[in-house]
Amino acid sequence: MSSNESIDVLVGVTAARGFVAGGLACGVKAREGALDLGLVLSDRPATAAGVFTRNRAAAAPVLLCRNHLSDGAATAVVVNSGNANACTGQRGKNDALAMARAVSARFGLAPTEVLVLSTGVIGVPLSIDRVLVGIAHITPTREDGHTFAQAIMTTDTREKAMGASCLVGGVEVLIGGAAKGAGMMHPNMATLLAILTTDAAVESTYLQAALGRAADASFNLISVDGDTSTNDSLVLLANGASGAPLLDADHPDAPAFEHALREVCVSLARQVVRDGEGARTLIEARVIGARSEADARLAALAIVSSSLVKTAVFGGEPNWGRVLCAAGYSGADLDPDRATLLLEDICLLRWGEAQEYDRTAASQALLLPDVHFSLDLGLGDGRAVAWGCDLSYDYVKINAEYTT
Amino acid sequence: MSSNESIDVLVGVTAARGFVAGGLACGVKAREGALDLGLVLSDRPATAAGVFTRNRAAAAPVLLCRNHLSDGAATAVVVNSGNANACTGQRGKNDALAMARAVSARFGLAPTEVLVLSTGVIGVPLSIDRVLVGIAHITPTREDGHTFAQAIMTTDTREKAMGASCLVGGVEVLIGGAAKGAGMMHPNMATLLAILTTDAAVESTYLQAALGRAADASFNLISVDGDTSTNDSLVLLANGASGAPLLDADHPDAPAFEHALREVCVSLARQVVRDGEGARTLIEARVIGARSEADARLAALAIVSSSLVKTAVFGGEPNWGRVLCAAGYSGADLDPDRATLLLEDICLLRWGEAQEYDRTAASQALLLPDVHFSLDLGLGDGRAVAWGCDLSYDYVKINAEYTT
Repeated sequence: MSSNESIDVLVGVTAARGFVAGGLACGVKAREGALDLGLVLSDRPATAAGVFTRNRAAAAPVLLCRNHLSDGAATAVVVNSGNANACTGQRGKNDALAMARAVSARFGLAPTEVLVLSTGVIGVPLSIDRVLVGIAHITPTREDGHTFAQAIMTTDTREKAMGASCLVGGVEVLIGGAAKGAGMMHPNMATLLAILTTDAAVESTYLQAALGRAADASFNLISVDGDTSTNDSLVLLANGASGAPLLDADHPDAPAFEHALREVCVSLARQVVRDGEGARTLIEARVIGARSEADARLAALAIVSSSLVKTAVFGGEPNWGRVLCAAGYSGADLDPDRATLLLEDICLLRWGEAQEYDRTAASQALLLPDVHFSLDLGLGDGRAVAWGCDLSYDYVKINAEYTT
Repeated sequence: MSSNESIDVLVGVTAARGFVAGGLACGVKAREGALDLGLVLSDRPATAAGVFTRNRAAAAPVLLCRNHLSDGAATAVVVNSGNANACTGQRGKNDALAMARAVSARFGLAPTEVLVLSTGVIGVPLSIDRVLVGIAHITPTREDGHTFAQAIMTTDTREKAMGASCLVGGVEVLIGGAAKGAGMMHPNMATLLAILTTDAAVESTYLQAALGRAADASFNLISVDGDTSTNDSLVLLANGASGAPLLDADHPDAPAFEHALREVCVSLARQVVRDGEGARTLIEARVIGARSEADARLAALAIVSSSLVKTAVFGGEPNWGRVLCAAGYSGADLDPDRATLLLEDICLLRWGEAQEYDRTAASQALLLPDVHFSLDLGLGDGRAVAWGCDLSYDYVKINAEYTT
């Protein structure tokens, strides 16, 4: 799953043909020289799609993106980190538009061809003059996909990139992307941004549908719908530079494209979780036997979102009752007498009865980099997998001290 | 709000006439001599009501209580701490019933007159033999209300008790109660138990309705409906020992009774929050101007439940955008351009525009024992107040290490 070797051109936002990217330090972040401005640019017009936060206090750049995506097209994405431009009123809207206009002027695009993403502190006006100077100086290249991935980071400790390919009409198309993380990936934590590019040619209505499905299988399984930050954004540009035939919902290679798209999204989502603030452990919760897939998603998300589960993993305490408790309040149908729970291959609960188990082995399993809980609700065929991370002292430290 | 002077007979479960209580160490908790068994007993039959967790994995004692309260009557409440008897299958149900039967045999009651509450670790069978020995030895008295309050504690650092009075038909009636806390009072945290008694005579259907309303104004504003632990329970016994006339929904003194009942519940709820695991600060979120009271409750609860708000308070960082962000994903209607936010009397946001404010004063305000956020949504007349606490290193420590 690791893809930190982002020098490899086959991962990241410049994996796909016809895309260049870059990043620089423009001074939004307080630390001198910290990269805080990124740009992705297609060498030709592209169709585009986006999935955005449902937070009612959606940030100005999110409102701009929704507006600029109404025609299903975009050619550039500009991102600043260090300031979310959220809860900034009319000034924030003006600033987001100024960013789009600066990019459009610099690269000869219409302003509506530019998407704007921001991440960082909420409620503080953006240093727009610095951002505009940065846009005037940024020089995107094919090789700077990793610079872009670094420039969008906030409390992330490492860049996140991924790539995948598939055949469309016998022609190889590439999909790549970069992401930045969101606190500990609890539903109400910080901001998630993901920027994807592909050299497939994709009809825009289908592109939006495919991106929505990929998000449901990845980013929406680390963050609950409707319970997201002011800035969460996932965007995808498809520029057709591969020369492959146009993809739409009826094309026989659409499933292959969606499979590759999902692979990129799941990898980025897992990278984000693994790098959650203060996280040591990736927690995977697999729920089977639910009444429905919707129930399975609810239960799996509740498990990986529970502060009690997270702290138990951090402490290496196999306090597995917290797992069942989280599923119990998730809204999913659950009968404790039918539930079976495993930690790795250690059976803790079978049809509602606590099992004797090797406590030392269970504790040790919780201290590995990956922890897997498998919960069988014994009620039906619904299944889902969700991902989270442990809750550590460092999470508190990072979030108690973070402002700018 | 403090009521730790529980030696005062006017607070706690023995404040009301005709009730005795006690507590002892029976050996459920690992630490030798730790109080872990409590009993409340009325000297005459009482009407009774209860509000319980909506967790689908509700513990065996919760199922027993729902069953035993179906006739609207109860005479005794037995509580063990140290083990929640949750996720314990058929054996757990047998153990809860054994507790009720032991109390009924000892004090000459029917088993259905006994309510059973448990709190502690989930998924571990109860040491029922020790509990039964404890029940055989416990000797409730008028003076031991505080012993009872101590015996129900788990990670609580201090006992919680409260009392209030009102006139019914010109006769003074007393309402008292004890509670134990629930982690940091985040929706998915640990267990909350509250046991209330009154010497009013109250018709049982009305008693249940009044208790539900009191819970909505107190415990349900520190913990989201449907998102609660396996064991959360609030019970109220009304024995009529005051000699006051029978209260029902149509009695002119019903509002006075409900006012006193709410006063007890709000105080206990606040005491629980203030003693949240690792908590230094009580956070009060007051939302006004919401489209509806339901919206105001959603927004206020989201604010006090947000890990980002909690860590910001802990760190003394006036990162107020997190407050608006939480309201934004709460489900409440919100227009960021109409929102106004105050920290104490410091205006941070006015009609969507960030205000200049004294950052040092704001930081200092966050480090006081009580922090008040006031959010005006500018949309209507809905209002609500919710309470939470900060999220500290000690919260992680307590929950990483807690099993037994």
